Parts: sequence; structure tokens; C-alpha cells
Amino acid sequence: MIDLRSDTVTKPTAEMRQKMVEAVVGDDVYGEDPTVNELEKYAAELVGKEAALFVTSGTQGNQAAILTHTKPGNEIIMDNESHVFLYEAAAASVFAGVQSRTLINENGKMNLEEMEGAIRGNDIHFPETGLIWLENTHNRSGGSVLPLSYMKEVYSLAKSNNVPVHIDGARIFNAAVSLNTTVKELATFSDSIQFCLSKGLGAPVGSILAGDKSFIREARKKRKMLGGGLRQAGVIAAPGLHALKTGIPQLKEDHQNAKRLAKAIDEHSGFTVMNQVESNIILVDTKPSGLSASEWIKKLEQVGILAVAFAPTVIRFVTHRDISNDELINCIYKVTNLEY
Amino acid sequence: MIDLRSDTVTKPTAEMRQKMVEAVVGDDVYGEDPTVNELEKYAAELVGKEAALFVTSGTQGNQAAILTHTKPGNEIIMDNESHVFLYEAAAASVFAGVQSRTLINENGKMNLEEMEGAIRGNDIHFPETGLIWLENTHNRSGGSVLPLSYMKEVYSLAKSNNVPVHIDGARIFNAAVSLNTTVKELATFSDSIQFCLSKGLGAPVGSILAGDKSFIREARKKRKMLGGGLRQAGVIAAPGLHALKTGIPQLKEDHQNAKRLAKAIDEHSGFTVMNQVESNIILVDTKPSGLSASEWIKKLEQVGILAVAFAPTVIRFVTHRDISNDELINCIYKVTNLEY
Amino acid sequence: MIDLRSDTVTKPTAEMRQKMVEAVVGDDVYGEDPTVNELEKYAAELVGKEAALFVTSGTQGNQAAILTHTKPGNEIIMDNESHVFLYEAAAASVFAGVQSRTLINENGKMNLEEMEGAIRGNDIHFPETGLIWLENTHNRSGGSVLPLSYMKEVYSLAKSNNVPVHIDGARIFNAAVSLNTTVKELATFSDSIQFCLSKGLGAPVGSILAGDKSFIREARKKRKMLGGGLRQAGVIAAPGLHALKTGIPQLKEDHQNAKRLAKAIDEHSGFTVMNQVESNIILVDTKPSGLSASEWIKKLEQVGILAVAFAPTVIRFVTHRDISNDELINCIYKVTNLEY
Amino acid sequence: MIDLRSDTVTKPTAEMRQKMVEAVVGDDVYGEDPTVNELEKYAAELVGKEAALFVTSGTQGNQAAILTHTKPGNEIIMDNESHVFLYEAAAASVFAGVQSRTLINENGKMNLEEMEGAIRGNDIHFPETGLIWLENTHNRSGGSVLPLSYMKEVYSLAKSNNVPVHIDGARIFNAAVSLNTTVKELATFSDSIQFCLSKGLGAPVGSILAGDKSFIREARKKRKMLGGGLRQAGVIAAPGLHALKTGIPQLKEDHQNAKRLAKAIDEHSGFTVMNQVESNIILVDTKPSGLSASEWIKKLEQVGILAVAFAPTVIRFVTHRDISNDELINCIYKVTNLEY
Repeated sequence: MIDLRSDTVTKPTAEMRQKMVEAVVGDDVYGEDPTVNELEKYAAELVGKEAALFVTSGTQGNQAAILTHTKPGNEIIMDNESHVFLYEAAAASVFAGVQSRTLINENGKMNLEEMEGAIRGNDIHFPETGLIWLENTHNRSGGSVLPLSYMKEVYSLAKSNNVPVHIDGARIFNAAVSLNTTVKELATFSDSIQFCLSKGLGAPVGSILAGDKSFIREARKKRKMLGGGLRQAGVIAAPGLHALKTGIPQLKEDHQNAKRLAKAIDEHSGFTVMNQVESNIILVDTKPSGLSASEWIKKLEQVGILAVAFAPTVIRFVTHRDISNDELINCIYKVTNLEY
Repeated sequence: MIDLRSDTVTKPTAEMRQKMVEAVVGDDVYGEDPTVNELEKYAAELVGKEAALFVTSGTQGNQAAILTHTKPGNEIIMDNESHVFLYEAAAASVFAGVQSRTLINENGKMNLEEMEGAIRGNDIHFPETGLIWLENTHNRSGGSVLPLSYMKEVYSLAKSNNVPVHIDGARIFNAAVSLNTTVKELATFSDSIQFCLSKGLGAPVGSILAGDKSFIREARKKRKMLGGGLRQAGVIAAPGLHALKTGIPQLKEDHQNAKRLAKAIDEHSGFTVMNQVESNIILVDTKPSGLSASEWIKKLEQVGILAVAFAPTVIRFVTHRDISNDELINCIYKVTNLEY
Repeated sequence: MIDLRSDTVTKPTAEMRQKMVEAVVGDDVYGEDPTVNELEKYAAELVGKEAALFVTSGTQGNQAAILTHTKPGNEIIMDNESHVFLYEAAAASVFAGVQSRTLINENGKMNLEEMEGAIRGNDIHFPETGLIWLENTHNRSGGSVLPLSYMKEVYSLAKSNNVPVHIDGARIFNAAVSLNTTVKELATFSDSIQFCLSKGLGAPVGSILAGDKSFIREARKKRKMLGGGLRQAGVIAAPGLHALKTGIPQLKEDHQNAKRLAKAIDEHSGFTVMNQVESNIILVDTKPSGLSASEWIKKLEQVGILAVAFAPTVIRFVTHRDISNDELINCIYKVTNLEY
Repeated sequence: MIDLRSDTVTKPTAEMRQKMVEAVVGDDVYGEDPTVNELEKYAAELVGKEAALFVTSGTQGNQAAILTHTKPGNEIIMDNESHVFLYEAAAASVFAGVQSRTLINENGKMNLEEMEGAIRGNDIHFPETGLIWLENTHNRSGGSVLPLSYMKEVYSLAKSNNVPVHIDGARIFNAAVSLNTTVKELATFSDSIQFCLSKGLGAPVGSILAGDKSFIREARKKRKMLGGGLRQAGVIAAPGLHALKTGIPQLKEDHQNAKRLAKAIDEHSGFTVMNQVESNIILVDTKPSGLSASEWIKKLEQVGILAVAFAPTVIRFVTHRDISNDELINCIYKVTNLEY
């Protein structure tokens, strides 16, 4: 099967597994795992923050960030299709007691005037605005990339209202590659950032939350509450570090592959690519074909291709490091020759 | 001063105060206050529900309803300008751990297709949809009235998805009067309803939450948690009961007064009435006058009229029982002759 | 019936009802109810705090205090029989996300060494100690009075650990009367205090939360979240103010009555008074009689006396202003001549 | 250094690391990691439950259990020194909104009459008793073992009150070994059980939560909220499975080592062993020596032995698989010949 459901399906390479074998480990709850410490230090420097924390998933990193930035009764301004709103089982409200203030997005971008209008004033009836949330790249709009200028504007607006900014950067390295810049540059316009070592970078498990020292000190405690305080975590930090050190160049190829596949789908099949394909995600409208998303998924599966339904007539394909060039060609051939 | 800031400013009448003097009371935490019991019985019958609960405010009624209907991690579908979202200090997320799923509204109405799309399926990433929320009349859109047909459609959609419906009916009697129907009729399309005895009906304190017996039994416990278990509550239930028994006809006059005032503002002043004026609320756009809302409010105050800013260039006026005909005429005169 | 179940059953006097008729009122959510403002000012001065807040119940005052003093994940040190732990439906954990650290009490007093040992150090595994909680008088131990010296020691311990102290003073005026001191004196050793206008003082509804200005400002917002933001609340603040101004001397008589009743029970009946009877509460052990609490309650009810079971073989009697001298004599006669 | 601070410091063996290299993996959020699935199946059978869930820590397993068993406002009956109460940063109150009802323990055992008395009746003031919590072995009392008969009695009491029972079995295999029985036998008297693959069994990371199918299905969602939904988790499930399959016999040796060390300390040094040493934990009273715990720890560290302070004059030693026989002898020699 050619698995294009998500870049989360990427499997650890032989090198990564070897890193597990060699990892020097200790009890990370005591702060004594040298490999975890090395990863956290490397990651912090890479994204230009004072400190970093190894977490077991993007959700854990996001929730630890919310628990650290906010107080119950705060409001988080986020876009209405953000992962934290749609796909984290309302954890922000359950665990942190915060209200989601969702604004309509266009390719992941909220309107800045609307954002300013959504920041709460001081009134006994109002939640306080506790955090502004950006997702880059933006999954639901098809891996859209928030440009540096937009992030800067949001950050400036936030700062002038004394509100911190968090970036859900599960795929921030895709954004950096697409913008031909560094994550460090992008993270300048944030108080905290979370990014995934799994997904496109290929590590089996784990994400990073980065911010300033006091933020990470507090987030470490929140991670403990979430059950993310691990023991000899070096065994998974090691492949994570390897992924971070070696995996970024591959993302460029993933993006090119996405563009190739998108072009083929758009031109040769009865489907319409809906998004710009700025990174490794393709959204396809199945309506022109008369098929529903689930019908097409079934047909694709029969020829050995896996994808996911994003809406009743929308399918998402995600390219990643485990798709070889041959597989991509094979996939393009199959998709464009599929009868329906 | 002619106080048009809100119908919450209405003061208890001499009759209501006399009811306080005469009220037979007991300890309501033990369920032994005859006046509270009478009010709850009367209110339940009036709105066609099995049982009712006297609460100290609309917010308390709404929050008790949420705590009773939902579980942490549920999502409540509500409109993006609802009172519960904007003006209850995020209590639903703090106390009940629920996520607000806000949909854009037009005059208080959410689009039904969007609503259906917002109901969550079964997935490990998803909150469960725990409640659908309607506000009738709808404050932010200027006291808009949700018609019976719309409420029916929402209720039908909700039921076919096994989701309960709550009506924030802080001003539901205004809706009933405007629609020339009964609250009982409107409440048919709900599992629970909250309405205020204060506001237009004129009671000094209190609201009612109504629903079926088991719902109210549980809500009674939630009210206790919120600190709403009172002792000799009959002293405030008595004027509340009086307000409920006698106050409804006045609302028609409030609506007519609102229309008269709105017409005058629209025709004679440099301002534009923005809403349909279906009940007792008028929204005025101050932009044509070149004044901001706060500037106009200052001028109005100087001639003895109070109103509130609803947005930087929007003012809200609310008519109510404490505005006499003379005062209305006076107010119309002043507003239309105000220099700016 | 002679109702000795609780002092919460006291009914408003004719004077209090007259105060309702005469009360000058306004919309208290806007801070415009002169009677509420007068009550809050008077109450604050009476207990020697900067500011006060009128709440609808002791539970609401306690919960607003917790929501204001603490952060989620804090621990409150309290005695294992405190009202907030046993009788507030776990609201502190539900609403504020705090953990109850209960210490064994002797007549309401926790051991000071144990208390010091319970204050948490700085560790990733630990909750932070956010509040120390005292209840004076202490209901479960039979209205025991915490002496000034004990309160001072607790306060000093708390301050040296930077932990605030809250007094649940639902019956703090009973404590002051019993200690022949003022509530102001007692409240010196606290950061916030809650006391009830209902109960022994006789108001129909309401309690007061007092503390410094910034604390009360924040608590006012928490009260709004709890649904305790009332409109023309002056109608219940007025009898509350009257109760506060006139009701304190009566408590002395209540205490004497309790002693008289306790003595009679102890000497003439087959029951044993378990507590010292320092205020208006009597705890009676029914074991010597061979009866259970519920059996004895039934017998008492048959002769016109109401009491409550506090444990399978413990009954609580509470004296209060609505028990006349004749009724007390009658009650003593009946209790001591009851066959069983 | 001979590290006796905890059995959490055990490092993965070469075999375990080899298992990481060989593990067949998939995306566990999709349920497609064969190694995780194998571990969960094996673990469920081993403890005699329908289903199991791989979690990243004991805390995560405990918190997922609480979130699944309880509703906000519930009370959990637990002993006053349980890990969940002392060392999980109040997560149960923060995340699940439950109140901890702590009972005094003797060697981890709560008194059964007290437990029965602590189960709440039906009253508007009361939390509902939602869960009874046992910890076996019991860390704070020095690895005490709850015998089968006690667990059976607790379970029977719980069942007759319709309350579920959870075992925090972080070291349940130590209990089973000590009792010469199986975990399956012990887990009979529970609705859910959590145990650690790390600690004595030696896995680098992870714990198991087991219960019936519907419980685990729901707990899986709670784990996702906690950020415990991992991707190619097989890489850590593999060593976990190996630890579970091979690590149990070692525990017997750990217990014998603990006894040997305890005997030596008791006889030859100026310290008193406080506990029975039923498993792998030794608690030592430093008072007879005139030293504080931290002073002795410093001295021990100077001769190459690590331990932790459990109280100002109590030190905990924990034996485990990474302590060889030579090291133990060496350790005994050093401890008994330490000058002070």
C-alpha cells in the first residue's frame, strides 16, 4: 500500500533504530537523561528559544503550552479550523478551563482587524484574552504556509495588547522549507512553539515545546501532570534528535512530490485540487467526479493507495519520506487512470 | 435620567414589595419555602415543562443547565454572539469543561446546514456534541426574534442527532409577545429553558430554569454548587411570581415604544437604526453622524438619557416598564433635537 | 413544631420585611444599588477589611474566595470535617481545580505541626499549597470556637510560608460572642472571611465575603461567573443589613439556651451530650439509649421537635432566635420526658 | 554510584534495545502498531482483564483511569499517603474535577469501617463517591503489600455500594511476588489496574492500564487528550513487552536484597529500619543517629550511594535489577561502616 493518509505514518529508519541502541540514558524525571537533555538543548537553539521540552505528541505540547500560558476563564483566539480546536477532544476547555474564541480563517490566516476586535476589554462579563494561537503550516486548509510578514503582524498586535502568541508548528519545518527560511526566523514571532519530530521528520515518537526558561520550567510540571514525565526517555529522544538533525532536507522533496501528484490529479483525473499545495498536503474536491470522498477512498484502496476523507467530498493526501520516487510515479499512474 | 441602558434596571413596584412583606417563607434548601415552591410550579406550567428551579440570575440558570446537560469535553453549538459566549466570563469552560463551538448568526439564527455539519461524529480526536444553544430574543442582533418554524427545525435536527436543546430565554416573553404566541409553544422545541423574572417583567431578582423532572433534580444540585441554594427565598420569589403573573402584557407596550423611538431616531436624527426592532431593543449606527458611540453616549447623558455602547460605533437602547409615555415622548424629543 | 434542625430556618422579622419595602435599589451588576453598597461598606468595616461583597450563600462566598485565592493544581489545607469539604458538593475541585488536603481536627483545630508538615515544598510532583482554611465556629464538632490564640498561630504559620488564610465564618459572630471579642479581632488573622447574614442573625438570604480591595474586585467577577450578580439586590441586602446591625446580641441568648438544653438532656434523658456547647450547637450521642439517631428523630418529631442526624448515632440540635423562652422550656420538658 | 533512589532508574538491557531495533511498527493512533497491539493483548491476559492500554507513565495511566471512571464532583476514597494524592500535582482535581477523600492508612490499608463511613449517601450537599483507590505495593509505607484478603474485602464493600475499584499497581508485580501469587489473582478484586513496565521490570518507558473493553475504549480517548496518543510506539512497546515477559523473576531477588540491606542497616548502623520490608523498599529512621535525612544522604553520596529523603528524618532505599550482588555487598559494607 502507498500510504498517503498522513506523514504521521513515517517509520523510523535503520539509523534511528541504531540511535536507540546507542543512546546514553538516565531517569528523565530527575533530569538525568543525557540524550533528552541534548535533544532539548539542540531543539531550543534550532528554534531560537531559551529552553525546550521533549513531549510525547503535538497534542501534549499544545496542552502543556495552554496550561502554562493561561488561567481558567481566559480566552484563546484561534482560527476556526485549527487542530487544537477540532482535533484535541476539547482538552483545552477540560484541562485548562479556557474558552476557544474562533475566528474564520483564509488559508490559516485570521483577519487582523477581526483579531484586534476579538481581544477582550476589561469588564466583569468578559473572559480575559490569554493567548493568540497560530498553526503553521495549517492542516485544514491544505498545508498552507503563514508568511513571515503575517506572523510578524500578529505578533506585533499581540504584544501591543500584552497577549502571548503560541505557534502550533506541528509542521513548522515544512513552513520554513516552503518559505525558504528557518524555523528560528519564524519562531521569532512567538512566545512559544510546538513542533513534531514524528510526521515529516520521521521520528517514531515525540514533539518539542520551546519557549523561555521560566515558561519551560512551568511547562515541565504541566507535562508531569499530563503523564508525560518519562524515565529512560533517551531511547526515543535519540531517534528524535537524529530526525531533527537529518530530516529537514527531505521535506523539500515531499513538497515537490505533492506538487507533482497534485498536478497529475488536477489534469488527468476527474477531480479538482482545492489548495495551493504550498507544502506536503493536497486537498481534492471529489464533487466533479460525482463520487463522495468515502467512495473514492474505497476505489483508491483497491488499487493500493490510502488517503483520508476531510469532508464528505474532500480527500486529503499527504506526501512524506516513506514514499519513494517509484511509488510516487506508480501512485500518479494509478490515480490518474482510476475508473469511476 | 431616562435609563435606556437595559431592561435590567427596572425596579420593583409597590405591589411587588408588598408581596415580599406577605410572603410565606421557609428554608428553601430543605425545599420548604411555600412561595418558592409555588413560583416553581407556576413557572413550569407556564412554559410547559415538568419542573422548574428558581435561580438568582440568567447566568446561574444557564450555567446550571450546562453543568446538567453536558460532560467535560463536550462541545456546545451556539451562535458567535450569544450571551453565554460573550458575557458569562467563559464560565461554561471553567466550570463544565465544555468547548464553545460558535457558528456565525444572522439575527440570532445559525445556518442549519452549518449546524448539521458542526455536529461531531465518533472519533478519538473529537469532542462530543453535548448541547445546542439558542438565544431568543437575541440580544446582540438587537432583540431579534427566532420564529417558531426555525426553533422547530433546530429541535428536529438536534433530536435526530440525540443532542438536547437549551433556550437562553432571558427575554423569551418578549419573543412570545412579538410572535403573538406563548412561551409554552416556543419551549416545546427545547429540552430546557431559562428565562428572567427581572428584565422586562420587572422583578428585582431572579430567573427560572425549566425542564423535565430528572433534569431539574440534577440542576438543583448544580445550583447548590454555584451557591444558589438560598434560605427564605420566598421573599424574592414572591415579587418574581407577581412579575410573572402580571408583567407580560407590558412587554407589548415596550415593543411599541421601541418602534416609536426607533422610527424617530431613524427619521429625525443623523443616526441609522440597524435592526428590525422586533422587540424592545434598538441598535443605532453612529457612523453617519461622524460620532463614536461613546461620544454620542456622553451627549445623550447630558440631556438625561442613558444608553450603552455595543461596539465602537453602535449604541443600544432598551425600552422597559419603567419608561412612562411622557418619558418616551421626552426622550424622542431630546434624541431627535440633539445637536452634534 | 420546635425546629432545632438548624439556625438556617430563622425567618425574617417584620422589621426586616419593612426594610425590603423601603429599600432604595438600583442595578447591582452596574454597582448602582445603594442599599447593597451600604451593606458592603458596613460589613467591611465591621470585620475590619477593606472591602466586602454580598453573596447569596455561604457556599457562594466560600467558592468565590477559593476561585480568587487559588490556581488549579493548588492544595487547600483544611480540616477533615470542614463544611467546604463535606457539604459543598466538591465544588472547590470542580470549579477551581484544587485538591483538598484534609487534616484531622480536634474541635475544629488542626494540629499546627501537622499543618506545617502539610505545606508543600517545591517539587515537580507536588501541588502548591494555595490556601489555609479555618471554620469558626466549627459545625461538625458542635459549634466549637477557635480561640484567638490559635487563629493567630495559624496565621503566623501561614504568613511565614506565604500562604493566605480564609475563614469560613458562617457562624463567626457566634464565635465572637462566645469569646467575648469582636469579629474584627478574629478577622485580623485572615486574608479573607465569609460570614452568613442568614443563620443566627436572621436575615432571609445572604452572606458576606470580605477581604482587601483587589481580592474583592476579583471575587466580584467570580461571583458573576457563579450567577451571583443580582439586579435590584437591595431588597435582600436591606434585611441583611438590619440583621447585621441588630442581630448580634441575640446570639448570646442562643448560646445560653443551648447550654440549658444540653444540661437538661445530659442530666435527665438517656442521652449524652458529646460537645462542650460553646455556641448554639448541641451534639447528642444516642448510643446509651439504645436508639439510632433516626429512631430518636422520629420520636422527637412526634412530640413536635425537629433535629437532624449527624451520624448514625449522633443528633444535632441548633438553637436560634426563632425559639422563644416558652418553646425552650417546652422543648426541655419534652426531651427529658420522652419515653424510649 | 550505587543508585538506590528508586527502581525507576533501571536502564534498558541490551536485549530490550535489540527489541527496539526489531520492532514491527505502525501508527498507533490509527491502532496499527502491531507491537503495541501485542503488548496490550499480552498485558490484558496477564492481569486477567478484557483489554489494556499502553501509556507513557503510571501517572498517565492513573489519570486516564480517573477521567474514565468518574464525573466532576465525584469523590475518590484513597489513603492519605497514596501516590495519586501526594505526587501527581493534584491532576485528579485539575483534570477530572474530583475531590480526594483521604483516609488514614496503616501500611497502605485503610480501615474498612472508616471506608464504609466515607461512602457518601444521596444528598444535595454531597459529592458522589465515584471510585475507591488502592495502591499495591504501597510506596509511602515502604513497599507494604496489601494481602489478597484485604483487597477482596475492599472490593466486596465497593461492589455492594456500586463503586468501582482502581488499583494503582505501579509495583503490583512486587506485591504478587511477595504474596507468592499472580497479578491476575490480585486484579480480580478491581475494575481497573495500572502497572509500570519501567521501575522493577526494567523497561525504559511505559505503563499499562487494564480494564474491561468499554472502559479501555474510553480511556484511550482520555489518553489522547493527555497527549499520550503516540505514533510508532512499537519502539518502546517492544522493550516493555520484553520486560513484562522476562522481568518478573528478578523482583524476588530485589526483595531478598532489600531484606539483606535492611538487616545490615538495622544491626550494624546507628539507624532503625522502620518498615517490614515486604518488597523492594526500605525506610530508615535517621533520628537515633542524630542526623537528618539530608545529612545522611550527603554522607552516603560521598561513599557512592544514592538514596532519597522521604521526610526530614526518613530515608528511602529501593533495590532493583541494576544492583548486582557485588554492589549490594559493597553497599552493605559502606552503609554499616559509615562514620557519623
